[in-house]
Amino acid sequence: MKKLSRSRRSFLFSAGAAALWIPRSVKGYSTTEMHSFDRDGQVEDTITKWDLDTPALCVDLDALERNLKTLQQTVSGNGIASRPHAKTHKCPAIARLQLETGSVGICVAKVSEAEAMFEHGIEEILLTTTNVTPLKISRAMRLRKWCAGFIQATDSLNNAHSLSEAARAVGITADIVVDVDPGGHRTGISPGQPALELAQEIDRLPGLHLRGILCYDGGSQHVKGFEKRKTQTLSRLAPAGETIDLFKRSGLNTEIFSGGGTGTYNIDHETPFFTDVQVGSYLFMDAQYMSIGGATNDEIYSDFEPSLMILTTVVNDQYKGQVTTDAGAKACTINQPWPIVKGETGMSYRSGSDEFGTLQYDNPSRTYKVGDKLELIVSHCDPVVNLYDQMYAIRRDQVEAIWRIEARGMST
Amino acid sequence: MKKLSRSRRSFLFSAGAAALWIPRSVKGYSTTEMHSFDRDGQVEDTITKWDLDTPALCVDLDALERNLKTLQQTVSGNGIASRPHAKTHKCPAIARLQLETGSVGICVAKVSEAEAMFEHGIEEILLTTTNVTPLKISRAMRLRKWCAGFIQATDSLNNAHSLSEAARAVGITADIVVDVDPGGHRTGISPGQPALELAQEIDRLPGLHLRGILCYDGGSQHVKGFEKRKTQTLSRLAPAGETIDLFKRSGLNTEIFSGGGTGTYNIDHETPFFTDVQVGSYLFMDAQYMSIGGATNDEIYSDFEPSLMILTTVVNDQYKGQVTTDAGAKACTINQPWPIVKGETGMSYRSGSDEFGTLQYDNPSRTYKVGDKLELIVSHCDPVVNLYDQMYAIRRDQVEAIWRIEARGMST
Repeated sequence: MKKLSRSRRSFLFSAGAAALWIPRSVKGYSTTEMHSFDRDGQVEDTITKWDLDTPALCVDLDALERNLKTLQQTVSGNGIASRPHAKTHKCPAIARLQLETGSVGICVAKVSEAEAMFEHGIEEILLTTTNVTPLKISRAMRLRKWCAGFIQATDSLNNAHSLSEAARAVGITADIVVDVDPGGHRTGISPGQPALELAQEIDRLPGLHLRGILCYDGGSQHVKGFEKRKTQTLSRLAPAGETIDLFKRSGLNTEIFSGGGTGTYNIDHETPFFTDVQVGSYLFMDAQYMSIGGATNDEIYSDFEPSLMILTTVVNDQYKGQVTTDAGAKACTINQPWPIVKGETGMSYRSGSDEFGTLQYDNPSRTYKVGDKLELIVSHCDPVVNLYDQMYAIRRDQVEAIWRIEARGMST
Repeated sequence: MKKLSRSRRSFLFSAGAAALWIPRSVKGYSTTEMHSFDRDGQVEDTITKWDLDTPALCVDLDALERNLKTLQQTVSGNGIASRPHAKTHKCPAIARLQLETGSVGICVAKVSEAEAMFEHGIEEILLTTTNVTPLKISRAMRLRKWCAGFIQATDSLNNAHSLSEAARAVGITADIVVDVDPGGHRTGISPGQPALELAQEIDRLPGLHLRGILCYDGGSQHVKGFEKRKTQTLSRLAPAGETIDLFKRSGLNTEIFSGGGTGTYNIDHETPFFTDVQVGSYLFMDAQYMSIGGATNDEIYSDFEPSLMILTTVVNDQYKGQVTTDAGAKACTINQPWPIVKGETGMSYRSGSDEFGTLQYDNPSRTYKVGDKLELIVSHCDPVVNLYDQMYAIRRDQVEAIWRIEARGMST
């Protein structure tokens, strides 16, 4: 893994890091931002997170960098690579940090996310969802025309034929992985013979170039207890492992066997031929992942640190045993476990109302007054990030950069 | 109520409807839109909703117009007004339809929403949340300087003093309503003497002009059963009614007594001195409101029609008894009851995964193949709208306009 410190800073503050890089995303403040920090005509030089208008999405850079390092050291040590899923952060600035710290590429869930990432300088992109409509297939092929590192998934013979025709129509050969179902029956083709036949057809089709398989075992990521999680995911990945072995014996390309996630990043390498983990939440962590337990701590999953916080302000303190904040469901989602107040105990937060959060005191380590700000560890990072246009990158309470969440809302 | 037909169309397709109106919001398609409709270099003249890339948020104009009419006829018949809450739609185009069909103004929940609405031509705005930080108070006062129809809430003496100072600092007198707590203890001051003392202080303060009270009984809106809902909300609004009577007897201004919502729009007028309902969901309806029952139908709340739909595409049909779609939590939220497939029976939809929806067949009225599109009645309209940058305004399957959701994500 490359060292972060100097290169990261030069990346954050240089405009020329990549030909397609748009500097406004990571450098300085927008006019609107400046306007909101403006007080009596003075723009302050140093802005702390406590100055931010709320609700605000903040990421702690020290914690984020430690999470990047932990992940990369672990998977490298286990002989595999990381190909993090950008559906979690939707943020080109973070994708670049991941690539710079050793990831072989990123994953995306939607063709619109792929377009946004490419537009902002990311060139190694695996789209994990099969495009089924002519419009989406056409968008993906146009993207592949410009982006040599763009790989697409397919999970049926009909679809493979459509992809090949669309690729030929724009004069390209499209890179393809077979999406194999780990048993959740959500997406993907069945492992074994069906997947092999699909791969053989892809190998024959003139517009397609087979790269391997993906098998995302989403159903195992949040299983509580490390051993239970390990047993489950290894058994669910085994048929995909046997499938890629079939590919090998048939002389097909097997350079990619991608899958796994934050819950199984230190397990997935035990499946034979597995090449790279599609981790996402490891960057930020959240209340959902914290509760699953890890290899060294059965209660709290402490491999990675919570780095993503929602900053919120108390707007009402008139009623006994509680305060109301400005971060409700539109700032936090209604995912559970509910957000956790960082650094405090004896209180519980609920974001069930659209506009307001409620902080209930049980045996609180402190109480709050109107205007006080507090930080929330998010419930479930992916959908929370998708609510914001930007996140504030914070180091020791100072705002170091504002990162645009360029693929926010890109669900098509 | 003004007639909709001609004036609505001229509004939708004229650039000069208001000085501040930005025509791109409601007229034609953006470059990106055109790009996505482009096929073999041809741009089709007529686009139906079935051509749209998915997930797509669509509103049926005929149903929307009937909902606008039903609401306005009912409240007018009951001798009160409507002041719809724009936190539901976050869309200036719809706010203008509401004002054009008889509403006296709109409500917003956040100062950023107020700014977005004013920037797009809306000039009668009631901010229902108390601003407590210097930054937000300053933004609100700057807005009031330009927007004479902007009214703000307060719920404490300290806050009233801050508002008055901020108003004086920019040389204005700010219009203020007292936010009275209906018993939920979320926001607002207690009714009776505390509210009266606050109102008297507002009346004395040099920077403030008292306009009346607001009392939003959110806790009653989704009570199942019309009679139960009526009993509860009338009892919870009664102290606010007595409070405004105290105001009157103290010679204070009581021109506004605003509250209520879609669940109580035909009940609220029974509280003495009540002036206007802050309805929001009546425009769109959703699975949550449909289940509360109405005055004439105890099972389904049928006063208003579902007009808001998420269009989604089937992406996998390989597994028995179900299909997978492209609309998960990031397109639908995880609010429950889950979205309902429009026009079909014997199937249930779940949007628990971030990227994918699952449609389970029980005794289905039809089945779907990969690439088929279907329409979902949304679970809870407010947070769903907040996920999208635009909604497609549809009439008899044709796309009539694309409405920008200008206040999407504006939670500050």
